[in-house]
Amino acid sequence: MIMDYNLESLKVHKQLGGKLEVRSKIGISSKDDLSIAYTPGVGAVSLAIAEDSSLARTLTLKKDTVAVISDGSAVLGLGDIGPLAALPVMEGKSLLLKEFAGLNSFPLVLDSHDASSIIQVVRSVAPTFAAINLEDIKAPVCFEVESSLQDLGIPVFHDDQHGTAVVVLAGLINSAKVTNKELSSLKVVVNGAGAAGTAITKLLSSVVKDILVLDSKGIISSSRSDLNKYKKEFLSLTNSQDVSGDLSFAIKGADVFIGVSKPGILTEEMIRSMNSDPFIFALSNPVPEVMPDVAHSAGALIVATGRSDFPNQINNVLAFPGIFKGAISVRATRITEKMKLAAAHALANYIKQPSREMVLPSPLDKEIANVVSKAVADAWSDAD
Amino acid sequence: MIMDYNLESLKVHKQLGGKLEVRSKIGISSKDDLSIAYTPGVGAVSLAIAEDSSLARTLTLKKDTVAVISDGSAVLGLGDIGPLAALPVMEGKSLLLKEFAGLNSFPLVLDSHDASSIIQVVRSVAPTFAAINLEDIKAPVCFEVESSLQDLGIPVFHDDQHGTAVVVLAGLINSAKVTNKELSSLKVVVNGAGAAGTAITKLLSSVVKDILVLDSKGIISSSRSDLNKYKKEFLSLTNSQDVSGDLSFAIKGADVFIGVSKPGILTEEMIRSMNSDPFIFALSNPVPEVMPDVAHSAGALIVATGRSDFPNQINNVLAFPGIFKGAISVRATRITEKMKLAAAHALANYIKQPSREMVLPSPLDKEIANVVSKAVADAWSDAD
Repeated sequence: MIMDYNLESLKVHKQLGGKLEVRSKIGISSKDDLSIAYTPGVGAVSLAIAEDSSLARTLTLKKDTVAVISDGSAVLGLGDIGPLAALPVMEGKSLLLKEFAGLNSFPLVLDSHDASSIIQVVRSVAPTFAAINLEDIKAPVCFEVESSLQDLGIPVFHDDQHGTAVVVLAGLINSAKVTNKELSSLKVVVNGAGAAGTAITKLLSSVVKDILVLDSKGIISSSRSDLNKYKKEFLSLTNSQDVSGDLSFAIKGADVFIGVSKPGILTEEMIRSMNSDPFIFALSNPVPEVMPDVAHSAGALIVATGRSDFPNQINNVLAFPGIFKGAISVRATRITEKMKLAAAHALANYIKQPSREMVLPSPLDKEIANVVSKAVADAWSDAD
Repeated sequence: MIMDYNLESLKVHKQLGGKLEVRSKIGISSKDDLSIAYTPGVGAVSLAIAEDSSLARTLTLKKDTVAVISDGSAVLGLGDIGPLAALPVMEGKSLLLKEFAGLNSFPLVLDSHDASSIIQVVRSVAPTFAAINLEDIKAPVCFEVESSLQDLGIPVFHDDQHGTAVVVLAGLINSAKVTNKELSSLKVVVNGAGAAGTAITKLLSSVVKDILVLDSKGIISSSRSDLNKYKKEFLSLTNSQDVSGDLSFAIKGADVFIGVSKPGILTEEMIRSMNSDPFIFALSNPVPEVMPDVAHSAGALIVATGRSDFPNQINNVLAFPGIFKGAISVRATRITEKMKLAAAHALANYIKQPSREMVLPSPLDKEIANVVSKAVADAWSDAD
């Protein structure tokens, strides 16, 4: 019998009244307990931090607590459902950070709806936290928010962008291994230029030479007059021949399709026009750009989706818990490209014998966060 | 042997690395767990809230989670030590809400330093929470912040003001009982017109007729040309004779001295000039306006302080856990004067036989929050 996750999830949420609980590490049953946990003793802790602010990283929850912050403007596939409706998702994200990386995490959903007010709020609450996970903020607002906050002194990381990019790159590294294709020589088509598509393209562009990115209007090229400043950045990273056209044109002869777009947009005919043994990463969720059986019958060698009921699930939980754990462990002030690449390689190398049906490990494997964390910590250097 | 609370507190904070822990109420060990706690199941919970926002109060941590928010501008007796140094105190406050009222609570320290930016941040994060406890924000900023946020739809309560006021009123009710004095006929002097002094005066003014308030320049009267708008409000609530003068003038013939001011400011001579059997609430902490032994030898009948090593401790933990618990239980949108008065009376009545050395219960008694909560819930009415 297949479980109805929607019904079951509603039932569990109602039963629990929220999935997170804040607990005290100290019980209070005597005057001494109260005087140590709170006044007057806590005054000495405050004074110590006032004299040396770095002590907040050892004496308070700033040590290991990640904020999960969203304005609810791009939640799952549901769109702009607002902060209250986003809260169960953000609680879930906090829960995953605890379960997979042992980090404390607290969600904040914001009644703020433009980049500058989101930036102001995140900047204001930042002293409380060891790191900030931006989540489900729509593009292009998310780009401005994230880039404006890189001077905060703690990592600020938009998981919808970079978490996805890291897992996609890991899957691609192992797909190349399986087929003995050269990673750097792959011809890649990224369909979708939102938050995830942008980050995937940027991360891939440091290891793959030939990339075309498409938005709903077609290939991003210099002939387009409708590009915002974020899409204009693709002109130097991708499409070196500066071609124009739609997806059916772009995909001809490609080795890899990466879809972060819409259900069913990739046809069998398009797949047949690709290079031999192509990889299809169809990440629209829950309904992918093409269903795995259709893709395979049209000639796809390796198919990955966002779903847990098919092989090769692209699930951010493979990346973000370890990335935050590693970055916090070395008190990194940002997540650099080098750290993301290290995370992708660690994740790929975690599978000793990759195969067509296993280019990525299971999201449930709790050892992964440790492996990713170590690689990310080793890759941190202030100079990058 | 007396414990050195400062040393012990530093040791414990270092050991624990923060006093709070966020825990998941659900373990994640299977694909089903992940699909229920997070995607895809959580999408149904988000959609349910998008359709009926009140469901956030049953399906998420908004059900019972209180934010403890401070800018670190008036922390304990330490002053403006900033957000990072305030964090251990705010964690302590969150811990007390859990230990005494069973509520979840999370601290947010803000890198914001004027009323309008604090207001904007609190307004933005509000959807996450069931209630907001403002803490250790300096006067007069705290007045503007609190009053501007009363339309948020959840209680916003500055504990340094109203928590203190409720406990002082409770102590005064029982002091009157002990001495058979009439509460409403007491002549009260409030020395200090900051956050606590202002709230004490406002709450007392609904039950006591004769109050004089002093700031560092003397009695607040119409002859003063230096009053800000908050101090001007005292002109209609207090000093009906519109007298001017200093503390030694104000205190002559008074029944009650309430000090929220400076160590040692109340002299034996002043106490001797008071009415017979006066009550001295000397709340400057840790060094009160007068030491209890000195006050008693000068004729004080009842002495209360902020300290746990003397009888009659005025400790906010007697009030705020129950007030938040009660308000949240009935989904009150604010904390009304009626609710504060109900809390004070419930707290006073909790002591069946008040005595000179016991006008208030022990802060460690965990039944108090239930009693206060019930009274506060009963007193809530949208009409107030």
